[in-house]
Amino acid sequence: MKVDGKEMRPIWLSSENPLEVQVIDQRMLPHDLVIASLRGVDDTIRAIGEMWVRGAPLIGATGAWGMYLACVTAPEGRVSDAWLTHQAERLKASRPTAVNLAWAVDRMMAVVTPIEGDGARVRAARDEALGIADEEAENCRRIGEFGAPLIEAIARKKKGETVHILTHCNAGWLACVEYGTATAPIYEAFNRGVDLHVWVDETRPLNQGARLTAWELGKYGVKHTVITDNAGGHLMQQGMVDIVITGTDRTTWTGDVANKIGTYLKALAAKDNGIPFWVALPSSTFDWTMDDGVTDIPIEVRDPDEIRYVQGRLDGKTVQVLVPPLGSACENHAFDVTPARLVTGFITERGRCVASREGVLGLFPEKGKEALCS
Amino acid sequence: MKVDGKEMRPIWLSSENPLEVQVIDQRMLPHDLVIASLRGVDDTIRAIGEMWVRGAPLIGATGAWGMYLACVTAPEGRVSDAWLTHQAERLKASRPTAVNLAWAVDRMMAVVTPIEGDGARVRAARDEALGIADEEAENCRRIGEFGAPLIEAIARKKKGETVHILTHCNAGWLACVEYGTATAPIYEAFNRGVDLHVWVDETRPLNQGARLTAWELGKYGVKHTVITDNAGGHLMQQGMVDIVITGTDRTTWTGDVANKIGTYLKALAAKDNGIPFWVALPSSTFDWTMDDGVTDIPIEVRDPDEIRYVQGRLDGKTVQVLVPPLGSACENHAFDVTPARLVTGFITERGRCVASREGVLGLFPEKGKEALCS
Repeated sequence: MKVDGKEMRPIWLSSENPLEVQVIDQRMLPHDLVIASLRGVDDTIRAIGEMWVRGAPLIGATGAWGMYLACVTAPEGRVSDAWLTHQAERLKASRPTAVNLAWAVDRMMAVVTPIEGDGARVRAARDEALGIADEEAENCRRIGEFGAPLIEAIARKKKGETVHILTHCNAGWLACVEYGTATAPIYEAFNRGVDLHVWVDETRPLNQGARLTAWELGKYGVKHTVITDNAGGHLMQQGMVDIVITGTDRTTWTGDVANKIGTYLKALAAKDNGIPFWVALPSSTFDWTMDDGVTDIPIEVRDPDEIRYVQGRLDGKTVQVLVPPLGSACENHAFDVTPARLVTGFITERGRCVASREGVLGLFPEKGKEALCS
Repeated sequence: MKVDGKEMRPIWLSSENPLEVQVIDQRMLPHDLVIASLRGVDDTIRAIGEMWVRGAPLIGATGAWGMYLACVTAPEGRVSDAWLTHQAERLKASRPTAVNLAWAVDRMMAVVTPIEGDGARVRAARDEALGIADEEAENCRRIGEFGAPLIEAIARKKKGETVHILTHCNAGWLACVEYGTATAPIYEAFNRGVDLHVWVDETRPLNQGARLTAWELGKYGVKHTVITDNAGGHLMQQGMVDIVITGTDRTTWTGDVANKIGTYLKALAAKDNGIPFWVALPSSTFDWTMDDGVTDIPIEVRDPDEIRYVQGRLDGKTVQVLVPPLGSACENHAFDVTPARLVTGFITERGRCVASREGVLGLFPEKGKEALCS
């Protein structure tokens, strides 16, 4: 996507050094645009774990590039199965909730390990990582095409009055590779000339809404307003929201949606006020092995200091300030699960469907066996 | 309540200067305990509007003291009806949502204006303001007595396992005069030896949960954990919350509850998970003239900079840091309304009741005529 006129992705292979993958260090946005270099699996694990990169599809793409870096940093250039297996396990453990990470790493393993020869493995890994990134971009483009008509339909019903969309966290291009998931229909409807406005949940604790989604939408010229995570229910109750669109970190094939903590509360409010609640995702985010998201999806509990210290700008520097009393405990559950019954439907690269096993398998019939026999 | 061994209220008449009312400047908590002096109606309006003091009962008490300050600062010592009427209007306009403010100011007017003589008016105003503060303290003490059995009953059912209580914002003694509203049952159950733990919603934008409730509970020795406003739904879904207790800024006699923005979302989650949702309030917080809280209670929209800038501690100083991009709009609805259907019941100084017109009038039958004929 364009940032101040320059085309940019959140991750890419360095054009100057083929042993280096570059990422936007998203911790520093919106006040600084910092590019960080990853030179091995350790760097990649740190970038994922400390959330220099975040968002399910981008975590997947980063995991894929991590496997490429595993290949180019193999001891004595020997890209052995044992080495790859070990690095794959380490990468997959760096964030527990996003299913895309395991998906991408497993796919890299499946492509690379049958190949003979160290150099050939490196080239295959590079091509596959590039392929995964491009596929994610294409998936997001298609999510935009399938999602935009939802917004256009509301615009028609409102006779051209502004369409108000609420989103939680950042499921924009920064979380993906291009377009975003939740934002893809927004960007596409905007490109088609729909008059729209986005309510951006600030999304505590790390404020990815206020820091990242607001930055993205601003750079693209999309009207938006940052609100506290507390505000969405009131706005929906007062008729100020027409549709909710979020992303997801893992969605069961039965329709339960793990996403950034607080999503469930917005889904409850949407249900209570008869507002459609859509979830946008590439098929790589579906978990085909899990039936009950509420009981089975592992929910990452992160460092309580993410709650305790809020990052922002002061006198031209990015600093972190302590909010609660130092002696007070904090607890930081990073995700929650919205049950399928609260979700209107999914927007995927294959089209839209109802949030149910029938709906999902209707779009992805080839997954039926995997899902039903797991 | 005791703060580091010293008995303290959030507002009091200076013992050294009878022309001065003193308050805790709550904006500076938890990192600094600052006492501010109010020397007239202008100071009082600023203290209410800028939230040096906040919380429905405390805003009421502050409004009462503001009327006392109006008396002692009357031009040339002439405490005329016209002067008082003018200052009463100004005070009542300083915050729109809290009904206690108008209630306390009107009560002061009703007591002071029938009295003849400037000096007598000053003395009557002082006595009435003291009386209102003491009554609020006594009301909160009784709310504690009527509320604690709810927590004790859960403790019995859990056979002494820790009872987990979730609260939103600060409805503690800092919001009242003593004990608090939502916290009164908690302090009382704690005093009675119940093993309990409080989940404290940080409560954006001004973080009164993280800053004030956590500070209060910590000073009293009550186990507590600060969480983001996003987390409560997940905790309830996972069986980690036994009861929700909040305060309110205005509650209709029909049972609709205006409280800090985000309360409605927690009530939805409590309902969805079969968790009791109680609201604690003195009768001064009831609005006897309004039937439909969702459509009729005015919701204050405050300065968007309260969202944009987060206050915290850095290098021993309290500072404010900018979170979203400076160019992004923010919108700051300060309250929302939880419909009666989501509220299990009310805890008042007269006892507990169901959140319905029948329930409320059952406890306050003398209000029936006012409510039904308004």
